[in-house]
Amino acid sequence: MLSPIAWSTPPKKYGPWESVVSLLTEGLVKRGIDVTLFATADSHTLAKLHAVCPRPYEEDKSILVKVCECLHISEVFERANEFDIIHNHFDYLPLTYSSLVNTPVVTTIHGISSRKILPVYKKYNDKTFYVSISDAYRCSELDYIATVRHGIDIQDFHFNENPQDYLLFLSRLHENKGAKEAIKVAKKTGRKLRMAGFIADQEYFETEVLPYIDNEQIIYEGHVDPKRKKELLSNASALLHMINYEEPFGLSVVEAMASGTPVIAMNRGSMPELIRDKETGFLINSVEEAAEAVQKVGSISRKKCRESVEKRFSVDRMVDDYIKVYEIILEKCKREFKMQK
Amino acid sequence: MLSPIAWSTPPKKYGPWESVVSLLTEGLVKRGIDVTLFATADSHTLAKLHAVCPRPYEEDKSILVKVCECLHISEVFERANEFDIIHNHFDYLPLTYSSLVNTPVVTTIHGISSRKILPVYKKYNDKTFYVSISDAYRCSELDYIATVRHGIDIQDFHFNENPQDYLLFLSRLHENKGAKEAIKVAKKTGRKLRMAGFIADQEYFETEVLPYIDNEQIIYEGHVDPKRKKELLSNASALLHMINYEEPFGLSVVEAMASGTPVIAMNRGSMPELIRDKETGFLINSVEEAAEAVQKVGSISRKKCRESVEKRFSVDRMVDDYIKVYEIILEKCKREFKMQK
Repeated sequence: MLSPIAWSTPPKKYGPWESVVSLLTEGLVKRGIDVTLFATADSHTLAKLHAVCPRPYEEDKSILVKVCECLHISEVFERANEFDIIHNHFDYLPLTYSSLVNTPVVTTIHGISSRKILPVYKKYNDKTFYVSISDAYRCSELDYIATVRHGIDIQDFHFNENPQDYLLFLSRLHENKGAKEAIKVAKKTGRKLRMAGFIADQEYFETEVLPYIDNEQIIYEGHVDPKRKKELLSNASALLHMINYEEPFGLSVVEAMASGTPVIAMNRGSMPELIRDKETGFLINSVEEAAEAVQKVGSISRKKCRESVEKRFSVDRMVDDYIKVYEIILEKCKREFKMQK
Repeated sequence: MLSPIAWSTPPKKYGPWESVVSLLTEGLVKRGIDVTLFATADSHTLAKLHAVCPRPYEEDKSILVKVCECLHISEVFERANEFDIIHNHFDYLPLTYSSLVNTPVVTTIHGISSRKILPVYKKYNDKTFYVSISDAYRCSELDYIATVRHGIDIQDFHFNENPQDYLLFLSRLHENKGAKEAIKVAKKTGRKLRMAGFIADQEYFETEVLPYIDNEQIIYEGHVDPKRKKELLSNASALLHMINYEEPFGLSVVEAMASGTPVIAMNRGSMPELIRDKETGFLINSVEEAAEAVQKVGSISRKKCRESVEKRFSVDRMVDDYIKVYEIILEKCKREFKMQK
């Protein structure tokens, strides 16, 4: 299991890719599967941990990212013969090592940051296996062996039937994530908005967010820890997810619903795969529609939100799905090996 | 032969690593050796060219360097079985692929940009082979199979016994290269200084160089092409090489001497390995000493400068040296292979 090293696995605060890797790894270990996790040295796991990078590079700016990355990646491939499958969660760079080993490589494509990285995915399209994290997030130029939507540890999220009276923005502070639009919805409806998440774009934060923070109606709590994040999620009357891009998956969306909190989200990217419109939230297309949805949020059963996640986004379901993927790959490789003989 | 892709091989103007790769590659081909050159697609060679990167990334800022680099490097390792030796001139990243193939890898360490890249060289110290480009440029923490100083195509440089009356600065415009100090020497001696080279540090250029350019005494000709470079070299009365760092090698120093032009250089890095003090130039320790040396430059025989390069820095000598390195490596690998059996 090759995790990114931007954050530890699991991450201390933010780190969605590392978070998924951790849940999957621990889930596989619980099923009795022998897993070696390649991650930063400060990671925690019941699997065997193999680490060359002492700390996450996002937490230690003295680290030369390129050096840590290539050492981290080469370690897993140098031990390839010990593994039946290499599961890559580390973007495209590991693909370029994959043809040099006999172990099959499956990559969960967590995000395609730019069309400029596509040539690598295309080169290894026929030689390795790709998993998409939502149907929406499939690239038409690539082949996928499956879609496996993320699961979360539902027990970790406190279900709250009686929320407080605030709306919640919980995400990176970046244009993509619609912090500005969330503020607009709060202003339009006169509701309190609590905001939390790390500042991913300082200029955006200073021009589009900071001027509106009055710590009465619009409150920014900073980059909160997981404990506070869960409190914020379960006490919110609704999560505002006013994204400005085709989001591949929204972990906070699922986490909100697990806490009983309906989600008002722009109807794009993976949102229709996560939210059932008018059942577990509202899929909307503008700030105006979001403001209308805020008025109707009482019509959503918070219990149904929780149940929907229990059914569709549990860690167990994700682990089951990935085990199925591994089985298909091993079967394919066995067949090919026989054909070669 | 794995060349960098910052510039084409050979480079159109600047690109010292690519320049050495080109001279070595063409020299090996002339000896009848079967060479495949991995370089940008706009490169020129009599070897077999294998290219995935259409243009040098320094000439096309739309290229995502990381993507081009990993595609470029993986290609040579994916074809490793076709080669007896992989000769890496591409910094440290290729080392992390080297343990995944059986072909021996030798790396010419052209430069160590930061101590932070040393962990990669140290990891592969016992598994691959390193060549240093001067004795001065050896890192005590690494083992080297040889020092091979660069050679140049001497016929390419016009020998001129009767130079004009200017001093020359020919290098990147960067603090390391001592553009500021060259100007000081010119000012102190009242001599004309011609400067050429690309601006590697805009701020340095604007504060330390630009204010002194009057296009009478201090003339900046920009990033000149190879033709103009050779003219400048052969017509100069001396090259000023007032470096502020331990320069691993100085191609322009050798090129100047090949043109008959003595070099006044700071006595550090590889300079004592290139220049014979008072015979082919002056090894000095300050601007003051450089100014004194300028007065004495007439005492240097320009013919001796040329002869020194013919003896010590020809392409043929470099090609001979590398062939010896290859032979030692192949012999070592044969022995180890036998021992394993």
